[in-house]
Amino acid sequence: MSRPYNFSAGPAALPEAVLEQAREELLDWNGAGASVLELSHRGPEFMRAAEKAEADLRTLLSVPDDYAVLFLQGGATTQQALIPLNFAAAGQPADYVLTGHWGATAIKQAQPCVDARVAADTADGGYRGLPARADWALSEGAAYVHYTANETIHGVEFDHIPEVGEVPLIGDFSSSIASGPLDVSRFGVIYAGAQKNLGPVGLTVVIIRRDLLTRTGQARAPILDYAAHERAGSMLNTPPTLNWYLAGLMFQWMLDEGGVEEFARRSAVKSQMLYAAIDGSGGFYRNTVERSARSRMNVVFSLHDENLDARFLEQARAVGLISLKGHRVLGGMRASIYNAMPVSGAQALAEFMADFQQRNG
Amino acid sequence: MSRPYNFSAGPAALPEAVLEQAREELLDWNGAGASVLELSHRGPEFMRAAEKAEADLRTLLSVPDDYAVLFLQGGATTQQALIPLNFAAAGQPADYVLTGHWGATAIKQAQPCVDARVAADTADGGYRGLPARADWALSEGAAYVHYTANETIHGVEFDHIPEVGEVPLIGDFSSSIASGPLDVSRFGVIYAGAQKNLGPVGLTVVIIRRDLLTRTGQARAPILDYAAHERAGSMLNTPPTLNWYLAGLMFQWMLDEGGVEEFARRSAVKSQMLYAAIDGSGGFYRNTVERSARSRMNVVFSLHDENLDARFLEQARAVGLISLKGHRVLGGMRASIYNAMPVSGAQALAEFMADFQQRNG
Repeated sequence: MSRPYNFSAGPAALPEAVLEQAREELLDWNGAGASVLELSHRGPEFMRAAEKAEADLRTLLSVPDDYAVLFLQGGATTQQALIPLNFAAAGQPADYVLTGHWGATAIKQAQPCVDARVAADTADGGYRGLPARADWALSEGAAYVHYTANETIHGVEFDHIPEVGEVPLIGDFSSSIASGPLDVSRFGVIYAGAQKNLGPVGLTVVIIRRDLLTRTGQARAPILDYAAHERAGSMLNTPPTLNWYLAGLMFQWMLDEGGVEEFARRSAVKSQMLYAAIDGSGGFYRNTVERSARSRMNVVFSLHDENLDARFLEQARAVGLISLKGHRVLGGMRASIYNAMPVSGAQALAEFMADFQQRNG
Repeated sequence: MSRPYNFSAGPAALPEAVLEQAREELLDWNGAGASVLELSHRGPEFMRAAEKAEADLRTLLSVPDDYAVLFLQGGATTQQALIPLNFAAAGQPADYVLTGHWGATAIKQAQPCVDARVAADTADGGYRGLPARADWALSEGAAYVHYTANETIHGVEFDHIPEVGEVPLIGDFSSSIASGPLDVSRFGVIYAGAQKNLGPVGLTVVIIRRDLLTRTGQARAPILDYAAHERAGSMLNTPPTLNWYLAGLMFQWMLDEGGVEEFARRSAVKSQMLYAAIDGSGGFYRNTVERSARSRMNVVFSLHDENLDARFLEQARAVGLISLKGHRVLGGMRASIYNAMPVSGAQALAEFMADFQQRNG
């Protein structure tokens, strides 16, 4: 490992093997005589790569056949705008469960187009846990229920799929997709920006139960219509071929490494290692999220004295641990440990944390 | 030149120097210890690159200060959906001038949200010329006038900026931006998918006269709002950093090569070389676009006998000339000669065409 361990929350680290392959092929891809980013998306070379990427993602996530898989642009936030346009009538209620910053973003995107309601919210507690299911106020006639599976800023993760009955459940899985087995059939829609667990920035994966594609929704341009994207094989217009290709390399790598079961195992090991380092520090490091809601992806922590923050970051960098600065909303530190982060990276960070405490405690 | 000359219409060729630099930096960018696609868009490294890219594009295109420059996702087609949402009231008329396939796409995206009207149309003539300005039927109270500066499929290009009075003029410059000097101040909005003249796929440039950002438009999510993107410096959500970085390398390369004046000169040389090869072939090759409307970017032509098409493509590939197959709408051939295509590439194609004719004429 010559490069530092990169704990960026996203855009996040990719496996060195994936980057090496991309570098190797950057000027001449598969003998095409051109880079993957210089070829028509409708040419045979790219079409093969695109189809393989979709097939591999379906295998990786065990996506049932009655679900469409779309490769789109615009990030998770754009999907948050398209979801009400596609799946709700104007003024119809839609329920949102807010467990952190990104849930709050999701409802803001929906408000101009539906009667977006907060079904449950942990803002008063500072987004440190999950709202008890019994307290959710679900609406009669709701178009869907939306929640955020993992909150990257607050470090809060659902460890289960919430039960909402017949109403389609929509999950923002941007920061936890492919980190473990998931029963896709429990969802109406799953969406995820790729730049965390799935690899490259500039691509968004949307998985939709096909019957939802027949919903009328609201007046919208064809390019804002999921059914139109599905009919066009995600090539309604020029897709981000370079990003799609990189995601394909990443899907292959994840399958080669053992699939989501293996990443569930690694995620548990990595996150437990870091939470143990925090909890065992006697208050030198702190994480205030309820234990059952702690994220396996984003371990947020603060130092007992914030005057030490700059030194912590500087010394971490010196030993090859980068991008640990917390989000500006919370300050402190954040270690994002997505699929590309090896167990050795979490171990190196835990050891550095102990060492730093010894020298500064 | 070890790689073939790539005439792809988009995603299109990039200069080898740009790809070489991207390859060189792919695993460790500017000493950051990570790839550009593994770093936070809000970190100092990427922020510097993003700002430099915008400054360089402003220099390259001589963008006046009262214009915002946005770096977005979704391609030109998404902008065609956002333009009416942002700049027109519901039901307000908006005028569209259709000179080919992409103008027809633009109006389709607008129709769900405005009273989109065809002000002029050359479909009856098979999109082979420009509609005389005197015949345009502009609407009273139109929100804007939209046209397509260059039609990549039909090979039709405006050689002038149409005069439309006080109504904001909106131009789709996806396939001709930065190919010559352009008086930006004559426009309300200029937009362009980057994957042709500007380089990488997965990024769209939108240039907006700032006073238009105060228009009310129609109810829309913040992520579909240009003013919100402008306030956030095109970082309302995670931007496609890799693609933005590649565009920045391309802007720098275009400035180093001599800027848009130089690309205007090269475009004239390249396109004249190919049209001369067609016109001088005694009907062996054919282009039916009116001479004054012929594109400098996309030279479409057919062989007098379409049974020769496959042989033409195969032999062209054998001598290092690739991606010449025409769009499925028209068939035949298309040579796209954007900024990254050197004059030597057009020359090699013209020589091959003469040679092929001699052997098959």
